[in-house]
Amino acid sequence: MNFKPLGDRVLVERVEETNTTASGIIIPDNAKEKPSEVKVIAVSSEVEDVKVGDKVVFGKYSGTELVLEGKDYLILDTSDILGIVA
Amino acid sequence: MNFKPLGDRVLVERVEETNTTASGIIIPDNAKEKPSEVKVIAVSSEVEDVKVGDKVVFGKYSGTELVLEGKDYLILDTSDILGIVA
Amino acid sequence: MNFKPLGDRVLVERVEETNTTASGIIIPDNAKEKPSEVKVIAVSSEVEDVKVGDKVVFGKYSGTELVLEGKDYLILDTSDILGIVA
Amino acid sequence: MNFKPLGDRVLVERVEETNTTASGIIIPDNAKEKPSEVKVIAVSSEVEDVKVGDKVVFGKYSGTELVLEGKDYLILDTSDILGIVA
Amino acid sequence: MNFKPLGDRVLVERVEETNTTASGIIIPDNAKEKPSEVKVIAVSSEVEDVKVGDKVVFGKYSGTELVLEGKDYLILDTSDILGIVA
Amino acid sequence: MNFKPLGDRVLVERVEETNTTASGIIIPDNAKEKPSEVKVIAVSSEVEDVKVGDKVVFGKYSGTELVLEGKDYLILDTSDILGIVA
Amino acid sequence: MNFKPLGDRVLVERVEETNTTASGIIIPDNAKEKPSEVKVIAVSSEVEDVKVGDKVVFGKYSGTELVLEGKDYLILDTSDILGIVA
Repeated sequence: MNFKPLGDRVLVERVEETNTTASGIIIPDNAKEKPSEVKVIAVSSEVEDVKVGDKVVFGKYSGTELVLEGKDYLILDTSDILGIVA
Repeated sequence: MNFKPLGDRVLVERVEETNTTASGIIIPDNAKEKPSEVKVIAVSSEVEDVKVGDKVVFGKYSGTELVLEGKDYLILDTSDILGIVA
Repeated sequence: MNFKPLGDRVLVERVEETNTTASGIIIPDNAKEKPSEVKVIAVSSEVEDVKVGDKVVFGKYSGTELVLEGKDYLILDTSDILGIVA
Repeated sequence: MNFKPLGDRVLVERVEETNTTASGIIIPDNAKEKPSEVKVIAVSSEVEDVKVGDKVVFGKYSGTELVLEGKDYLILDTSDILGIVA
Repeated sequence: MNFKPLGDRVLVERVEETNTTASGIIIPDNAKEKPSEVKVIAVSSEVEDVKVGDKVVFGKYSGTELVLEGKDYLILDTSDILGIVA
Repeated sequence: MNFKPLGDRVLVERVEETNTTASGIIIPDNAKEKPSEVKVIAVSSEVEDVKVGDKVVFGKYSGTELVLEGKDYLILDTSDILGIVA
Repeated sequence: MNFKPLGDRVLVERVEETNTTASGIIIPDNAKEKPSEVKVIAVSSEVEDVKVGDKVVFGKYSGTELVLEGKDYLILDTSDILGIVA
């Protein structure tokens, strides 16, 4: 797959996730601002804070969905990435 | 066709697209922010990130429709272009 | 007619237009953001991107209508001009 | 009358006007953004673009009404002045 | 009375006013943005455009009311002062 | 009490106040923007305009309430402080 | 737990709190802007004002909830931290 994000954007791929909090309560899918964990697939040349391969967390309703070669991706502004999971 | 975009704008032409995601689900036409793939036809002299001929992806409801010599185009702000498809 | 626009404004005159797209479909008059083609009649001394005589395209609901010596004009911010038609 | 506008403001006096377009159609008084022609009476020391005595055009609902020595005036931001009529 | 305004603020005292325009029409008290004339009592050290003792005009609904030693005052941002009456 | 405000914030303590204007009229408690007098208890290292011990006036609905060691305080942005009462 | 906040963000952990003011009145859980006390667990490399281990106070509805390794955290912008409790 060959995609070059522009501006301060990164292309990410969703990582499987469960909608359960630490205490076992299920968060309904429309919970506002629940962060999601994704893997970085491509970064704009302007982006310095994250690298391809990083697992990052972002506010759930940030980003734009995008289909490339039949696969689902998300494009995020770097500023919407909350942090990197090591 | 002879059109010179101003500011940080580019003139693009729609590329045929299908409204189907990777998993085969049809996205209704009024889906918010579905990105579209277009080809760049002309760029403002201020634009550095994209070139004529680039295939780019942008948020669906960005841009202004424009008819030039009987053909449909879109004018986009470069900042609304999410990335370049190689 | 003698009018000197201030700021980044230009004075333009409407060019006759048809409300039909390339495919022959008539766009209703209240279509949002349909661009219009106009001719530049006067420019502020601060404006560099367009010249008197240029045919330019702008978002339809930009600009302020103005009557000077019994004739209808529009005043546009240069930033609302999408591009120049050659 | 002795009034010194502050900031980028100018004091103007309304010039008699007709609510008729070039084509003879009467514009209702509540028409949004119909520009009005006024004469500049005093300018702030920060204002460079217009001088006392200039006839200028501005968006109708810009400005603040002001009574000085029993006479009606308007105070305008220079940025709301569309241009100078010569 | 000892009060030191901060930022770009000034302390002013209302001057008696009538709600009548030049043409004798009474403006209802809830008229939007009717300017009022006040006297400057104290200025912040950052303020350069007005001095203590100036009679100034401001948009009626600008400012914050304040009681100091049993007397009514207003605190205004200098940017809300339209001009100085001489 | 040991609290260090961040940014341009200050920690203040309410001073007893009456809801009566100079003319004896009682202002209802939900009056918008009635300023309140408070004493400064702690200031951020970035704050230059006010010092600990100053009696200051601010717009009533500015600030965030805070309980520290069982006592009620307010945290204010310095820019919301209208002035210092001497 | 290994998480690196980006931008001006910090990762914090809630500290047990009571919903009672100094005067013993219980604040309902939906009180707007009630500040909360939390402990800082990780800070972005751009953050200078707070350190890991600091107990900080922030506006209650600031921040984004985040589950890491089965435990609940919050991510805060440093600018939403009101101050440090010593």
